[in-house]
This record gives sequence, C-alpha cells and structure tokens, in this order.
Amino acid sequence: MKPIARIYTDFPDKFGIPRQSGIVKELKGRVVFEPPYRDYRAVKELSEYSHIWLLWLFSRSEREDWSPTVRPPRLGGNTRVGVFATRSPYRPNPIGMSAVKLDRVVVDEGLGPVLEVSGIDMVDGTPILDIKPYLSFADSYPGAVCGFADRLYGQQLKVIIPHSISKTIPDDLTDALKGLLAEDPRPRYQNDPERVYGFAFNKYEVKFKVDGEILTVISVESK
Amino acid sequence: MKPIARIYTDFPDKFGIPRQSGIVKELKGRVVFEPPYRDYRAVKELSEYSHIWLLWLFSRSEREDWSPTVRPPRLGGNTRVGVFATRSPYRPNPIGMSAVKLDRVVVDEGLGPVLEVSGIDMVDGTPILDIKPYLSFADSYPGAVCGFADRLYGQQLKVIIPHSISKTIPDDLTDALKGLLAEDPRPRYQNDPERVYGFAFNKYEVKFKVDGEILTVISVESK
Repeated sequence: MKPIARIYTDFPDKFGIPRQSGIVKELKGRVVFEPPYRDYRAVKELSEYSHIWLLWLFSRSEREDWSPTVRPPRLGGNTRVGVFATRSPYRPNPIGMSAVKLDRVVVDEGLGPVLEVSGIDMVDGTPILDIKPYLSFADSYPGAVCGFADRLYGQQLKVIIPHSISKTIPDDLTDALKGLLAEDPRPRYQNDPERVYGFAFNKYEVKFKVDGEILTVISVESK
Repeated sequence: MKPIARIYTDFPDKFGIPRQSGIVKELKGRVVFEPPYRDYRAVKELSEYSHIWLLWLFSRSEREDWSPTVRPPRLGGNTRVGVFATRSPYRPNPIGMSAVKLDRVVVDEGLGPVLEVSGIDMVDGTPILDIKPYLSFADSYPGAVCGFADRLYGQQLKVIIPHSISKTIPDDLTDALKGLLAEDPRPRYQNDPERVYGFAFNKYEVKFKVDGEILTVISVESK
C-alpha cells in the first residue's frame, strides 16, 4: 500500500476536526496526487460524480499494537466498545474512509489534476490510498440502523462569534468555523465553563469556551 | 496491512459475482476472523448496526503495474475511463469496499465471533482488512449524481429456471441465483444467443444462455 495522493486541509492538528465526513459541509480540501500518479487520464470522467470516497491513512494515530476495545470521546471517553463497532483510528489496519463532495477537478500546471472537495474530516497532509466514485445504488442506506452512533450525533451547540472577531477573518472561514464548533470538538469528559480550548485552523489560532449549550469564541489570531 | 478476517461466499471464482455489493440481497457470506483477531470484545455493540462496511483486498486481481485507465465490462469492454472514476479492481492500492447487511453476529466454538452478512460481492476466501459500522448520517447520499454508472445499472434480464432444474437445489439458492443472473454476468461485448456460459456457485456448476433480454438456465449440476 502506497499513498497515491495527499489531502490539504485547514487542520494542521487533529483537534477541531469533525468526527465524520460530510457533517461540516463548508470544510474544504484539495487532493493533490503524488508525482507517479499525476496523470489526468486517471481521473477522466470523475467529474461526472457529485461525491467520491477517499480511503486514507490515519497517519497521526499510529499505535504499535491493537486493542479489541476503544473509548469513543462521544461516549464520554470512559465507556469501552468493540473497535469494529466504531470508526476510531485505533484499529488493526489504520484505514479511514470519507464520503466527500467533489466540487471541481482542476488542472494545476505544476501539480497535475487536483480534486477540490468539501465536507472533509482529515488533518492537513493526510495520505490518500484510494479514490472511488460514490455509487448511490450500492453505497447509500439512508434507513440503516446506526446503533449508539444514532444517539450521539445531531445535538449541536449554539456558537457565538463576536462581530469584532468575525470581521477579521474571511466569510467562508467563519461559516466553516461555526459549523465545526457547533459539533462540539471538546473531549466529552470535560465540562468546565471557565476552561479555554484552543486549536489551529487555517492560518489562525482559535480559542473558545463552552458554558452549557453555548460555545463562545474568545479570539481568532493569526499565527 | 494484514488481513484481520476472511469472508466465505458461494463464489469459488470471480465469474457470476455481482459488480457491486447490495445489488443481490440474497447472496450471503460469513466473515470469520483470523486467529489473532478472534476476540468477541472487538465486535461488541456491532450488532446494534443494521449495515457494515467491509474493506477488503482484491486478492484475485493483482497486477504488477497500475494503468491510469481501465475498460469496464459494463461499458462494453472497449471504452477506457479513468481508474479513479471506477470501482475496478485494477487500481494502485487494490482495496475494495462493500456495504453489506449485518444479519447476525454468532459465536462459533472453534472460530470465535462470526458475522453473517448478505448482499455480498466477493469471491470465497477474500481477505478482509477492516470492518466499520455503516453510519447513515455520514455515508448515505441517496441523491448523489453517479455519472455513467447511473446509466449502466438497473436494466435487468428476465431469468428462466425450468422447474426440472430449480427443484434440485434449495429455495434460498434459487432466489440468489435468479438475482445474480438478472444482473447479466456476461462480459458486455459478447452477444451470441447460442453461447453457453458456465460458472461455479455454491457446490454447483451453473450453465446458461442469453437471447436478447431473456436468460435461460440450462443446467445446475453438483460438482
């Protein structure tokens, strides 16, 4: 298995990344092929598809050994569940999969074909193992029963970004930031309204607090 | 990357296998973990999910080199399209992905936890790299636009299995056989009503002919 491409995103670190793809539709990424795979023919007809699968490596989550159980943050961080009943990165073969929207296929003079996608959930520079078209007749089960995951997603925080802060960053980044913060990126076992959380996003350092269901951005500063 | 399990199906060979998962819902498989992964804890809570993803190796389709284009059988076998715009097995990293229905998790005294699934599209013994829960909120895009794939699926053949034949095989296998034959397993560039096709299914050798839109089973014999 060799990386065929890398995806470039606004997340230099893991903190802040949505826990699944497609949840924050404003989050954009650029898929750039590795030099041996920079062949426009390989993505011919791909732009006929609205969505694609990316198979990728959990490059920041390597462990020497596997554990049969993991503790998902969304379950509070203390409850153990079977690793194959989760999408946790800590699995025997560290492959992630994400359905993303294919916005455009562009041709860059130096980089070859570049895929512009949105709805991403990967750290900047994540190695991509495969790209496949999304086939709704085989991949889409809108009525699938999703166990404990069904009970854990959907609750969103109300996000407040004071105008004095939002006016200093581009509108599209403000939208993306609102979306990812509404998903509550905190580890679930923390609940301290005075605690300040910080993470890197795009070229900014974002700081926020959470009190109950309300998340307030304190500062967004250029790094 | 190491196989964590293998899936056992009714297809000793590639011929006859549906081109995607979920298309022939009657086709069953059993996922048996490799000895180091036979730990019931690893699949704890998995039975809360109605569908799962299997990531697997195209073990029968290895090639030494990759080609930027492939010729999908459904396009007649002569039209070249970009490999990343297809689900062809001939790709740089030969990983397949299939959403299957999880019918049951059983515990076998000798084999440990076994996943009984349906809607499969793999050859018997295919190595499994990963098992993930299907998350409809992240994985399901029923309205996704699917390029040329949308135009190629959906046309089915009318399948005739004479009663003298169907009475010799179990009902559930007859149903599965009808489903997979309706998908027209022939390579598309062949159109000869006299030609007899044969393939192995379960413990049988199945022979059929196709005239126009009608497929007639000629014989089903124990091997």
